[in-house]
Amino acid sequence: MIEYVEQNKQRFLDELLSLLRIPSISANSQHKKDMVACANAVKSSLLAAGADKAAIIETAGHPIVYGEKITDPDFPTVLVYGHYDVQPADPLELWHSGPFEPTIKDGKIYARGACDDKGQFYMHVKALELMVQNNLLKTNIKFCIEGEEEIGSPNLAKFVESNKELLKCDVILISDTAMISMDTPSIDTGVRGLSYIEVEVTGANRDLHSGVYGGAVANPATVLAKMIASCHDDNNHITIPGFYDDVLEATNEERNLLGMAPFDEATYTADLGIDALHGEKGYTTNERTGIRPTLEVNGIWGGYTGEGSKTVLPSKASAKISARLVPNQSSTKITALLLDHFKKIAPAGVSVKVTEHHGGEPYLTPINSNAYQAAAKAIEKSFGKMPVPVRGGGSIPICSLFEKELGVKIVFMGFGLDSDNLHSPNEKYDIFNYYKGIETIPYFHKYFAELSK
Amino acid sequence: MIEYVEQNKQRFLDELLSLLRIPSISANSQHKKDMVACANAVKSSLLAAGADKAAIIETAGHPIVYGEKITDPDFPTVLVYGHYDVQPADPLELWHSGPFEPTIKDGKIYARGACDDKGQFYMHVKALELMVQNNLLKTNIKFCIEGEEEIGSPNLAKFVESNKELLKCDVILISDTAMISMDTPSIDTGVRGLSYIEVEVTGANRDLHSGVYGGAVANPATVLAKMIASCHDDNNHITIPGFYDDVLEATNEERNLLGMAPFDEATYTADLGIDALHGEKGYTTNERTGIRPTLEVNGIWGGYTGEGSKTVLPSKASAKISARLVPNQSSTKITALLLDHFKKIAPAGVSVKVTEHHGGEPYLTPINSNAYQAAAKAIEKSFGKMPVPVRGGGSIPICSLFEKELGVKIVFMGFGLDSDNLHSPNEKYDIFNYYKGIETIPYFHKYFAELSK
Repeated sequence: MIEYVEQNKQRFLDELLSLLRIPSISANSQHKKDMVACANAVKSSLLAAGADKAAIIETAGHPIVYGEKITDPDFPTVLVYGHYDVQPADPLELWHSGPFEPTIKDGKIYARGACDDKGQFYMHVKALELMVQNNLLKTNIKFCIEGEEEIGSPNLAKFVESNKELLKCDVILISDTAMISMDTPSIDTGVRGLSYIEVEVTGANRDLHSGVYGGAVANPATVLAKMIASCHDDNNHITIPGFYDDVLEATNEERNLLGMAPFDEATYTADLGIDALHGEKGYTTNERTGIRPTLEVNGIWGGYTGEGSKTVLPSKASAKISARLVPNQSSTKITALLLDHFKKIAPAGVSVKVTEHHGGEPYLTPINSNAYQAAAKAIEKSFGKMPVPVRGGGSIPICSLFEKELGVKIVFMGFGLDSDNLHSPNEKYDIFNYYKGIETIPYFHKYFAELSK
Repeated sequence: MIEYVEQNKQRFLDELLSLLRIPSISANSQHKKDMVACANAVKSSLLAAGADKAAIIETAGHPIVYGEKITDPDFPTVLVYGHYDVQPADPLELWHSGPFEPTIKDGKIYARGACDDKGQFYMHVKALELMVQNNLLKTNIKFCIEGEEEIGSPNLAKFVESNKELLKCDVILISDTAMISMDTPSIDTGVRGLSYIEVEVTGANRDLHSGVYGGAVANPATVLAKMIASCHDDNNHITIPGFYDDVLEATNEERNLLGMAPFDEATYTADLGIDALHGEKGYTTNERTGIRPTLEVNGIWGGYTGEGSKTVLPSKASAKISARLVPNQSSTKITALLLDHFKKIAPAGVSVKVTEHHGGEPYLTPINSNAYQAAAKAIEKSFGKMPVPVRGGGSIPICSLFEKELGVKIVFMGFGLDSDNLHSPNEKYDIFNYYKGIETIPYFHKYFAELSK
């Protein structure tokens, strides 16, 4: 397998770069055409790689790309899930090169979507080509590459629910997570869920002169700050009543296992340029990002934000706020709780409008399944080391629905790194990891087929 | 005097509208040329109105316009201070007509600067014309119309300090405040001071994925919210240590006097579209905006503020924060206190950068001076009612320096209304008030000359 990758490496890279040039930002409606263009590019790439068929599935939002290679109805079927949409690229001024002008530097591809998730799902497309060209296929492969993961997969559920036969499979394989490092390969055993809301506080019906009215009316920016500040106590526990009610506490055994993953605080803080970590009392950093729910402000704005000064008392102030959820918390329930809470704590003199953005349920996968074992063996084969099981901090909204509707487990085989600047300026993906993924995936199919016998 | 105003009213209005068309925003450097154009227009208008001379005075920032009409060296001299610069116009989408395309509706001029302060200082230019044309001048008049009032007059002090002889006068007359209403004329006996700072909180060196890092590092938006929230207690007292130390508490007598100014809460809240007032416990609304210092957020921003959602943990969050100050508080001292406080309360895991925007000292003027009496008589003459003395909530940064350097008192003869949307979208000025001002000002000169004998 290494040979085929080696022989085709430049083309494999060029194809990915060409995909990265399409600004497929799902959150911004002005990119609707780019989304369609990107879906078409994905469809063509599946056919070119050897899929029997591929199709664009229209939805109420951005299209889904479905493709399949049915080798033998008796073979086990692997459903590859990924997404061709990306996060918005701003703040643009912090990128060293254009987010949609992929640039290679020090062996890394810099571009929005390089790792999340174009670079990662495309490894599966190239692995399909490798297996087809070398007659290695002992599985059937289905692809479901959607365009709305970054906005909470609002239309995928409906597609899955009404296409259970089409999507029927024995395992769902997702490369949209990270490894601890190339020296310490790891497999995520779960992803956190998500509840994402927006809060808009309105005071007076217009911006006011801060001298004429200052001191007499509620300032929405101050009110919003107080509301946000009230959501965490001094130990960084979340204070919203009921927030932790359904949290399935990790057992000591699981915490001990998680504690075995290497973590070097000095390296971690130096990479981020901070002098201290900051999180919930009583938990380690890996626990804070893995087994504990969080509440974060993703954006805040109101009043005059231009150059210089303006003595204005803003009419409105807003914030985007999201919670990451852990097993047994329900995104629907927590979203309702958040919406209700922010309405409830608003003082007199302001009105509060809350809106729901998107959510996703948390997900956990067992490590004793054939699928997990196949992934572990595949990684051991290509990395020379057994991967460590860890909990991922991010979210893949559709996981829990996939399992419920299709009745199979998910395996996360991610080749990114936490430091790949996902959702940040200068997102990157190591070319080495890209090739390594293409090399590793066929082993997964091989071992999964063997273990499924 | 009414006759002359009546005969020239259309021209008086047209001239003001033409001045309002110049976007002389001092805070934004891209308006530098507009500032020069506006200064030249003011200079020409002074000469056209009958000034002996007028000049543009260059400064390190925007130019000052000086002009004078010396009728007789033995006459008392009135120095008119005003400003041709205006506040930024955004949020532009809330204006019903272009901020620099003055529009007349229901007898009001809608434009940025209509009231603050082009419409008001220009009354003095037209009053000069009226007095010159009708041989009414019994005073000498000097004009000092600056271009940096809205950014804290950073260069005016130097000009005043080095031009005491040029600016020598017996009273300083300023129309840059409001009346309670046309039915209840009033004179401001003071303005609040100002301290304006900007706080920038930085966490990690880049925006982070809120799933991968959420819960592990300090979120600058949350930290900033907590810092802001901590500045007021539940009674809306400001909690910054030392903030109230120098406040000269108003006497019961003064509070009783202020309490006599008409105030209708229902009208006030209905105009603002709010269901309740909100301010410091133990004080009335007029006291909160007049005799008490305040601390307000003028702007806040950080993270993703675009359409939809982005699961990002921002690298930075910032706020523009300003305090209004009352007699005996020092702007320099309070600015230093604020800068220091926000640095001090930052937790580990973030760094805080604080910058000073601008400030101004509070100012109080006595009501038993010749100047105040002349203003009161002039208003009584043209309105048919004695004006009520009140405390203004806004700030005119240069007042205290004027008094110190020139050794004379200031009289505030404002013809605006609090509801004129100063610093807000749809700033307006009633045409009636504009003409009424032009009619009233010559009486001030007459009575001041008589009382000065």
